[in-house]
Amino acid sequence: MEIEKPSRLATPLVIPLKTMTGPGPTNLADRVRQAGSLPSIGISYLHPEYAELTKDIVEGIQYLFQTKSQLSLCISATGHGAFEAICCNLLEPGDNVLVCTNGLWGERFSIIADRHDAVVQKLVKPQGQVFTPDELEQALKEHRPKLMYVAYGESTGGTLQPLEEFGKLCHKYGCLLAVDAVASAGGVPLYMDRWEIDILITGSQKVLSAPPGLTLISLSSRAWNVVLNRKSKIRSYLFDLTELAEIWGCNGIPLAGKYHHTSSVTLMYALREALALICEEGLENCWARHNLCREQFHKGLAELGLSLLVKDPSIRLPILTTIEIPTEYLNNWKDVCIYAMDTYKVEIASGLGQGNGKLWRVGFMGQNARPETVQLVLKALREGLEHARKNASQHAQL
Amino acid sequence: MEIEKPSRLATPLVIPLKTMTGPGPTNLADRVRQAGSLPSIGISYLHPEYAELTKDIVEGIQYLFQTKSQLSLCISATGHGAFEAICCNLLEPGDNVLVCTNGLWGERFSIIADRHDAVVQKLVKPQGQVFTPDELEQALKEHRPKLMYVAYGESTGGTLQPLEEFGKLCHKYGCLLAVDAVASAGGVPLYMDRWEIDILITGSQKVLSAPPGLTLISLSSRAWNVVLNRKSKIRSYLFDLTELAEIWGCNGIPLAGKYHHTSSVTLMYALREALALICEEGLENCWARHNLCREQFHKGLAELGLSLLVKDPSIRLPILTTIEIPTEYLNNWKDVCIYAMDTYKVEIASGLGQGNGKLWRVGFMGQNARPETVQLVLKALREGLEHARKNASQHAQL
Repeated sequence: MEIEKPSRLATPLVIPLKTMTGPGPTNLADRVRQAGSLPSIGISYLHPEYAELTKDIVEGIQYLFQTKSQLSLCISATGHGAFEAICCNLLEPGDNVLVCTNGLWGERFSIIADRHDAVVQKLVKPQGQVFTPDELEQALKEHRPKLMYVAYGESTGGTLQPLEEFGKLCHKYGCLLAVDAVASAGGVPLYMDRWEIDILITGSQKVLSAPPGLTLISLSSRAWNVVLNRKSKIRSYLFDLTELAEIWGCNGIPLAGKYHHTSSVTLMYALREALALICEEGLENCWARHNLCREQFHKGLAELGLSLLVKDPSIRLPILTTIEIPTEYLNNWKDVCIYAMDTYKVEIASGLGQGNGKLWRVGFMGQNARPETVQLVLKALREGLEHARKNASQHAQL
Repeated sequence: MEIEKPSRLATPLVIPLKTMTGPGPTNLADRVRQAGSLPSIGISYLHPEYAELTKDIVEGIQYLFQTKSQLSLCISATGHGAFEAICCNLLEPGDNVLVCTNGLWGERFSIIADRHDAVVQKLVKPQGQVFTPDELEQALKEHRPKLMYVAYGESTGGTLQPLEEFGKLCHKYGCLLAVDAVASAGGVPLYMDRWEIDILITGSQKVLSAPPGLTLISLSSRAWNVVLNRKSKIRSYLFDLTELAEIWGCNGIPLAGKYHHTSSVTLMYALREALALICEEGLENCWARHNLCREQFHKGLAELGLSLLVKDPSIRLPILTTIEIPTEYLNNWKDVCIYAMDTYKVEIASGLGQGNGKLWRVGFMGQNARPETVQLVLKALREGLEHARKNASQHAQL
């Protein structure tokens, strides 16, 4: 052979078990993991299990999102795939889109909308702050957008955007409301229909505690009509919701067994079980469990003398906390993370985007939203802070 | 709650173990399945295992594709994602693209290229036939395309396209050669560098016997230069190869730990082990094993009096066989498939595209390319034919 076998593949794959308390992916529930290793099946009439699986997932999404929308399905891609799906299905070249930007996700959505030739208008706030209905109305009046993007849970700033009035406001100005609930759905109250959300997305790897690789999406009938009545072609075939609606049996049309693409069937098994676990626990209980962890964790952080980026407790994202790195740690904040990982295999994550080097981020999501995990992280953090302080003073003495 | 818990998620997930001898997904190797359920990790500096994992996969792709190209990486999507990646990175609006179409895959590539505003010229042959260098040269002269797409293994017609001369021919006319090896890589001889292929793709769920959800892609330096020198923006962010090259540490740039998207890490574990298994066996042995199964199977089919769509043995795809449905079964061919599935949980697949209702398709790929699996399928097929014949004659008597 011209290219020889790489020697590195002759060594075993070693993946330690870590406590994944960053922004996700999180640890998987055992049942989810086991489901993910069930045997592969196909999508034709020879595999009726596949049709059942899709129905399970559709109804699971409807419960998770609190929506009656039959346009509820999965995209075979990570959350960025959902961003692409929103942009390529709902926006046409020259359309105005308003992007609420208070962290990395608004930036990313803007990039993707721009690549799809939309005219991007940004409503900008610093990380850690949220948007008021007045600010929103002002921007809607000024820009008259076709669609507005906002992150419900903003995982780079650690905020939870109050959304109750946003749907009505958007609709008053003929605008569709797209809500990114990747870092929130399942962990905090969320009502797609009641709040008049038009497009709602979430990922598999956060509160659902399923492996990354699938994105859940629901469309209101208002949004679906926009897709059906667009004039220009949908640029992506993989993310074309009119095609996906057919293979997901949406809109009451029975599953056609039609071939669109090869879906990630083992990820779908895992997601199905993750949704089943949420159903067993009940959404209210799941929300309450995440909130309890937040309370415990924030109490512990206060005892350690650490302060949060988000000052107003009512807009703190319960499932992910952004901690301000104290001045004395600005040069050696990584030591804290490395100590926690080396000693306890606990993930204390860095800030992302503007928050890099300024924030630590800790998430208790899904399987990790348990009091014992909170205590473990607080212990690792306390010791990590001591360790980094000692290290720094030793260096200072040299 | 407004939307109650769906009762269907309170029932257990039941997925039988099947012998997946259709066009894929195939059965997974145990080691691959176990790797896929290893714990999640992230992509930051806190997870050095992730950087190692990407290096393993890059070198595994280089071996599988027989290429030195450092632009070898994975796309977090199914094979259609690779089609989109080729179109959005290498084509610009108005570019001529020549699509060799002898089955569904050329049709699909054409749809996607058209959505990306390329001008699609098709070179068309019926399913079961391949293209000659003369025909190709004629089309290259006539259309002067920027890029040409051809499927090496065409899994709807069951053909293996001879490729040795195609790269040189394309380059003679200043055209890039994109080869779809989704249904061939690992199962038949394939030499990216020697054959001057510019863009080569394959999927995880065929010969590699890994779960669906990842696509492998390599670019020649000629293709990479086209990406780097394009004038218009790359429409997709998720599939932007200039971004992906950074997070895959391509071109000698060390892995930046940069966040682009959340990759499907558990699928990457599984793929890594699938590539390791191919390395352990050795490509030549793996190709020979698939060829042996083909010989056994085709001999068995002849004994059953069945004929193949592809008449010329030299262009038959070893890993997937297209069987002509005999006239007497044209109305009840599904009975054969259903019998095999009901009795043995063996998948005998339908034709796809033009071949639907005219062909059965049987694949022996990766883990399923074993003599005992061939014998099991032949037994299920023989009995299925008898069963369907009896059924039909009973109906005729009524």
